[in-house]
Amino acid sequence: MFDTENAIYMGSKRKPQGCKVGLFGVPYDGTTSFRPGTRFGPNAIREMSVGLETYCPELKLDLNEISYVDLGSLEIPIGDAERVIKEVEKATAEIKNMGLKQLMLGGEHSITSGAITTLYKAYPDLLVIQLDAHADLRNTWQKNHHSHACAMRRCLDVIPSQQLLQVGIRSGTRDEFDELHSSKRLIKHVHGQNAYELAQALEQHTNKPIYLTVDLDWFDPSVMPGTGTPEPGGYYWNDFNSIIEVIKNYSLVSADIVELSPQLDLSGSSSVLAAKVARSLLMLLSIP
Amino acid sequence: MFDTENAIYMGSKRKPQGCKVGLFGVPYDGTTSFRPGTRFGPNAIREMSVGLETYCPELKLDLNEISYVDLGSLEIPIGDAERVIKEVEKATAEIKNMGLKQLMLGGEHSITSGAITTLYKAYPDLLVIQLDAHADLRNTWQKNHHSHACAMRRCLDVIPSQQLLQVGIRSGTRDEFDELHSSKRLIKHVHGQNAYELAQALEQHTNKPIYLTVDLDWFDPSVMPGTGTPEPGGYYWNDFNSIIEVIKNYSLVSADIVELSPQLDLSGSSSVLAAKVARSLLMLLSIP
Amino acid sequence: MFDTENAIYMGSKRKPQGCKVGLFGVPYDGTTSFRPGTRFGPNAIREMSVGLETYCPELKLDLNEISYVDLGSLEIPIGDAERVIKEVEKATAEIKNMGLKQLMLGGEHSITSGAITTLYKAYPDLLVIQLDAHADLRNTWQKNHHSHACAMRRCLDVIPSQQLLQVGIRSGTRDEFDELHSSKRLIKHVHGQNAYELAQALEQHTNKPIYLTVDLDWFDPSVMPGTGTPEPGGYYWNDFNSIIEVIKNYSLVSADIVELSPQLDLSGSSSVLAAKVARSLLMLLSIP
Amino acid sequence: MFDTENAIYMGSKRKPQGCKVGLFGVPYDGTTSFRPGTRFGPNAIREMSVGLETYCPELKLDLNEISYVDLGSLEIPIGDAERVIKEVEKATAEIKNMGLKQLMLGGEHSITSGAITTLYKAYPDLLVIQLDAHADLRNTWQKNHHSHACAMRRCLDVIPSQQLLQVGIRSGTRDEFDELHSSKRLIKHVHGQNAYELAQALEQHTNKPIYLTVDLDWFDPSVMPGTGTPEPGGYYWNDFNSIIEVIKNYSLVSADIVELSPQLDLSGSSSVLAAKVARSLLMLLSIP
Amino acid sequence: MFDTENAIYMGSKRKPQGCKVGLFGVPYDGTTSFRPGTRFGPNAIREMSVGLETYCPELKLDLNEISYVDLGSLEIPIGDAERVIKEVEKATAEIKNMGLKQLMLGGEHSITSGAITTLYKAYPDLLVIQLDAHADLRNTWQKNHHSHACAMRRCLDVIPSQQLLQVGIRSGTRDEFDELHSSKRLIKHVHGQNAYELAQALEQHTNKPIYLTVDLDWFDPSVMPGTGTPEPGGYYWNDFNSIIEVIKNYSLVSADIVELSPQLDLSGSSSVLAAKVARSLLMLLSIP
Amino acid sequence: MFDTENAIYMGSKRKPQGCKVGLFGVPYDGTTSFRPGTRFGPNAIREMSVGLETYCPELKLDLNEISYVDLGSLEIPIGDAERVIKEVEKATAEIKNMGLKQLMLGGEHSITSGAITTLYKAYPDLLVIQLDAHADLRNTWQKNHHSHACAMRRCLDVIPSQQLLQVGIRSGTRDEFDELHSSKRLIKHVHGQNAYELAQALEQHTNKPIYLTVDLDWFDPSVMPGTGTPEPGGYYWNDFNSIIEVIKNYSLVSADIVELSPQLDLSGSSSVLAAKVARSLLMLLSIP
Repeated sequence: MFDTENAIYMGSKRKPQGCKVGLFGVPYDGTTSFRPGTRFGPNAIREMSVGLETYCPELKLDLNEISYVDLGSLEIPIGDAERVIKEVEKATAEIKNMGLKQLMLGGEHSITSGAITTLYKAYPDLLVIQLDAHADLRNTWQKNHHSHACAMRRCLDVIPSQQLLQVGIRSGTRDEFDELHSSKRLIKHVHGQNAYELAQALEQHTNKPIYLTVDLDWFDPSVMPGTGTPEPGGYYWNDFNSIIEVIKNYSLVSADIVELSPQLDLSGSSSVLAAKVARSLLMLLSIP
Repeated sequence: MFDTENAIYMGSKRKPQGCKVGLFGVPYDGTTSFRPGTRFGPNAIREMSVGLETYCPELKLDLNEISYVDLGSLEIPIGDAERVIKEVEKATAEIKNMGLKQLMLGGEHSITSGAITTLYKAYPDLLVIQLDAHADLRNTWQKNHHSHACAMRRCLDVIPSQQLLQVGIRSGTRDEFDELHSSKRLIKHVHGQNAYELAQALEQHTNKPIYLTVDLDWFDPSVMPGTGTPEPGGYYWNDFNSIIEVIKNYSLVSADIVELSPQLDLSGSSSVLAAKVARSLLMLLSIP
Repeated sequence: MFDTENAIYMGSKRKPQGCKVGLFGVPYDGTTSFRPGTRFGPNAIREMSVGLETYCPELKLDLNEISYVDLGSLEIPIGDAERVIKEVEKATAEIKNMGLKQLMLGGEHSITSGAITTLYKAYPDLLVIQLDAHADLRNTWQKNHHSHACAMRRCLDVIPSQQLLQVGIRSGTRDEFDELHSSKRLIKHVHGQNAYELAQALEQHTNKPIYLTVDLDWFDPSVMPGTGTPEPGGYYWNDFNSIIEVIKNYSLVSADIVELSPQLDLSGSSSVLAAKVARSLLMLLSIP
Repeated sequence: MFDTENAIYMGSKRKPQGCKVGLFGVPYDGTTSFRPGTRFGPNAIREMSVGLETYCPELKLDLNEISYVDLGSLEIPIGDAERVIKEVEKATAEIKNMGLKQLMLGGEHSITSGAITTLYKAYPDLLVIQLDAHADLRNTWQKNHHSHACAMRRCLDVIPSQQLLQVGIRSGTRDEFDELHSSKRLIKHVHGQNAYELAQALEQHTNKPIYLTVDLDWFDPSVMPGTGTPEPGGYYWNDFNSIIEVIKNYSLVSADIVELSPQLDLSGSSSVLAAKVARSLLMLLSIP
Repeated sequence: MFDTENAIYMGSKRKPQGCKVGLFGVPYDGTTSFRPGTRFGPNAIREMSVGLETYCPELKLDLNEISYVDLGSLEIPIGDAERVIKEVEKATAEIKNMGLKQLMLGGEHSITSGAITTLYKAYPDLLVIQLDAHADLRNTWQKNHHSHACAMRRCLDVIPSQQLLQVGIRSGTRDEFDELHSSKRLIKHVHGQNAYELAQALEQHTNKPIYLTVDLDWFDPSVMPGTGTPEPGGYYWNDFNSIIEVIKNYSLVSADIVELSPQLDLSGSSSVLAAKVARSLLMLLSIP
Repeated sequence: MFDTENAIYMGSKRKPQGCKVGLFGVPYDGTTSFRPGTRFGPNAIREMSVGLETYCPELKLDLNEISYVDLGSLEIPIGDAERVIKEVEKATAEIKNMGLKQLMLGGEHSITSGAITTLYKAYPDLLVIQLDAHADLRNTWQKNHHSHACAMRRCLDVIPSQQLLQVGIRSGTRDEFDELHSSKRLIKHVHGQNAYELAQALEQHTNKPIYLTVDLDWFDPSVMPGTGTPEPGGYYWNDFNSIIEVIKNYSLVSADIVELSPQLDLSGSSSVLAAKVARSLLMLLSIP
């Protein structure tokens, strides 16, 4: 008769027992210098998820057929970027100990390095795939080592360069683009086409466990206006699907979805798109 | 470490055991002809409650010192006003059976008659106090018997006229005002003054159990823009406090807070005010 | 069966025959330098009027008992302030010829002088009462003679100084305040009190026909956020009612309501207040 | 001199005499469980239509060259889904009796079955073409038979399965997709290409009168954020034009445009797109 | 230590000495009849520019490597369209005298003819390229000669027809389209393809100095909702880039970006796109 | 001819020479746990200041008659609360060395202790007057020592208890209220009355230099919806004026205005009120 409204991602269990995937939020935006608000991301994804069906016609899977738990959101130590990353490290370890694969909902991109620090210990051959508009390779930004503009630099402090693939980056400094090219980490994606360059790159990484980090500003601002630093010239749902078509043949062990600022998009469409991305990732993470 | 974000009113228990008050939502706005949206009211009150302190300096009470459960929200049978009211009747009975006093968060005003129908059976001397901008005494509105414009008429189908006090009504038809005056149910309240007319009226009802229904449009649109039919010339927080000062000397057994349309007030101030009203009522309902 | 939605002020006739009052809009904001949008004012008042009752408990009158026509809105010659004022002059003459008293919905304040130019010819003893936050006495503003910051200066080009009363002005230059005081046109109003200073002033003008111009920024920004230049420290619905209590004893022959910028107030409360002001004025204009 | 602002679709007549097409609104959203607001759709289409030209460069037709009447909007019996559908049936019959083809502006999708019930009696070979993101084939939804999630199921209560073509559906349950495929009603459309699969399907239906129902969420959320349940991965204006290119060779006898929730898109672009869809349909309906 | 916030376009000098390009705003929207607000365009472009990188991966240029000054914005004589155009003529002359190429940020499209009037004197073979949704070829609109709907007609009062190329126009009257075709000024652009038709047309104009006027409604409303008259079926960032790829081989001497109404797009994405267009144009104008 | 738009507070000089007051912004909201956005406060105050007159009828002073410089805003070391406070200390010292009194525009309340740390060294008898809804006396909040919920506790680390007056506090924990009462720092203020209790308290502090910190949530949410933690039951412009009437008889040496979150109030009224508060304080700081 009574029902708790909108508190969890649609169809989630509330207890981890019997689940394969653990979903949790990190409502943190402490280093966002331009327009804050990603702290509201996790709950917006949860709330808008109920506007979607549980069935995915592309993957021909239904959320009702898999088991995942919504663990809630991390409590954030306000105003101390370093400690937040540490909390993410600890949460990732804890979820791994529960026997769950994790789907982390940001919050800003700087949280990714926390998850990767923990998972790299468990999976030394972990391959990180980044969907993003921005290279995120600065070493510091506004004098902060843990700025979201440094998100992938911090990951590269942990994993070797050849274990990172950066898909469709379209914004960066001249130095960042030089590095993207020279390191061969930049994977080109052409809007409307299959993800064949990613497919090709992955052939060299068979059997490696994959971590997928989706910075939602990878999408075009027209379909994802709800993000702090929108960059014109981005990608669409069908492009994301092409990526998924490739990745589903590999072993996805963990993923995150970051940089949703729902209050910037009053229509809610950005949050729905993020929730649909989450639906695909939950399905991929549940494939044995 | 993990924490469910914003899903319940601040400080609520999640289980009724040991509680005195049961809080629940009725996210229903099916008869709202002008501007819908009160269905979003219960969760907005929950979310914005965390911006308040648990301590009330006027009542000198702290939510931490009392026990109340947030039962979640009723599942609404969409598009059938009559069945919604029936569901409210049943929920009210169920909560009473749990040994809890109830605080119902609307949703539109038409739900009040459901609660009163059940409670009147338990308390035949139940005294209903209505704070409202509108008389709500139409028999039908837009051919609907259960419109929120008929909310108190439906209550008067259940309780006798002398068991209703209508405080500060400032909008209605000529017929409604004629009835308000001839029935002596209209209790005048002067902004900025003590609620002495209500105090006087209550002297004739000593020992009666009280049901308080707060239609939030009783407040001035400047402090409560988030409501569907704002009516200029309303009341303020201090006026509400004057009412509380009077009622706290009587036995409040049940209450509701209705007609919050949070999406009409992007600042969130309306939801904060509603949450502060809820805080006062939780405290009054907890007094033995 | 079919009904035209929201196109007219509630209860208006669509033909002038048999009516006493003619309502029309002037959707003009061409000299507004700060934040435009009053062009949307007339229709917002019409649309939100349906959220009100037709009965006014203060005046004990009902719109259903009087006859008024909504004539639609003037077509505006874009980008030519002078011609707009001329169009208002012509419209005012035309409405007068129809035997109607007029209620003009702005649009910005500069349109008032158009109406007064025509009416002053018919009523040489016309007394203009201005409710406004600003003195509007500049001779030019941003090199424009017809700026809304010059609205009353343009009226004073037509009527003599002693036929203008400026009620509750709270913003202006030092020169404007000097003139307000020395000319004795400034009528003080104390929030929450009766309009006794206006009442006193009017005693010297018995039998004069009155033109009331309501610049909505006279109201406090809390109750009227939907205006381009909000000025803290303003008035409330009850204050407006005090003014009406005084004016209803005199002969109101014409009125306007200006400076509503509805898009600045997403809650719609500003438009509701403007519509309620219109309701009072329609009633006063209908008193024989 | 005076002009009624924005009350009708641009260029409409106000009387049906001499017209070929009758336009009317059904401001109903009573079964919308997620995010209401389609009740504001008809007027938003009217208001924003004035931002378009009357000439269509694709069809090389001009609205000035055809005759259509805006009949206003249906009065809605609030809170009773069944009666609303009945009202639509009656209105459809009435408009047919006037000798007009009809263009119905919703409101939510559940109203379509009302129009089809009436028209199927007149045209037993009526072919219904549905543009929609969702299959809308549930039998009940949230215990309601007339939910907008059941819109096409209700139509299939009236017309035979082979008289329905469902174009570009991209969201549904596993059961709905199974039915779409097995019934061969699903017409695939590839973004950016001609509507050749629809063209092919229509070859089997030469001479059948066509009813086109456009659920605006068929469009991508980036061009139509103003709808209650946006579904990523949708279609664009050029795709709609491809559909029109095919249908214009057949006999369109009636159409509707539903599920616009204008308040969700503050930019107004969604309403402009809906108004442009209406322009194309008015032109097709006017072709003898 | 102290830093002026957001007052200028990112990386601009504040003094013209040593600069090649002069950037300035014309915050004018006086003839906009439908939805005003382009007066807020120049500052929105400045404010949102900081969300972009200074490096352009397509042009492989960095703003840090070029020199341009932000001169601020023109003071607008409110309510007098003709004088505004004159002010633009004067400003253009002044900037030319400083030895700067100019990038003008509107404001509405009517300001373009002011710049062209001055520049045509200096460059009699000036070739004007217009990116626009609308033909803007009316001679008067709403009785105003200088309406933004007449923007290119006013330019054609100055330059000969064969010195204007109108790229991708998709909205206009039947007369306008007839003229576009017969004059051969209409340059077709197919979304997603190279700008080969423009390239072809430019071959006949080798060595001519180019003026590029970008009416932002050329873009699709999904990527540019922040404009007053959005027209479905428009272009995207990649299309703009195709245009730039062609133009960069010619000599761009001046440009403008007009019709941004930032308040219509709360997400800010429209302003970011406009700022990115400005970045490309600043780079092209700096090429010797 | 050219004019920099909106970059500084109205009438400010851009160089400190010859000025008495230095205005600067601290766009910092790093410890705001509930709803961020005060980082946008300083510029919103600057932008909306132009909607006010320079003349203050209550103080009978004109900004044109005094000299003050807008120094811009502090560059914020993102994500490190402690360093931000240090930067404020340094800026305060620097401004003092320039011979200027300072008016600091926040940003969140935690910045106040930085200014006071510096000024207390110069003025050991500095009297701090706090206008605030909240006591801000927590020692830590969410494990952060520099949270804005600890703002005054941090000040009390510097100044003795008897040199702080806390005016009109209406929200806090039971402990905070106990301390407010026992320390006698709580100064009651009754809405609508003169500030006689403050006047009385100040009589014991004749000749002491005063620091006034205005947390804008002291105002009622109806007039100040643009703040992160609105608290019903607050104060109004006239109440602020009463405070000013008292303080103007003493020596104000420094002040700040904090906690404006302009994006929460789309009408801009909150920013106008903040700008008007700034106008009064600039005048008081300029009195020799």
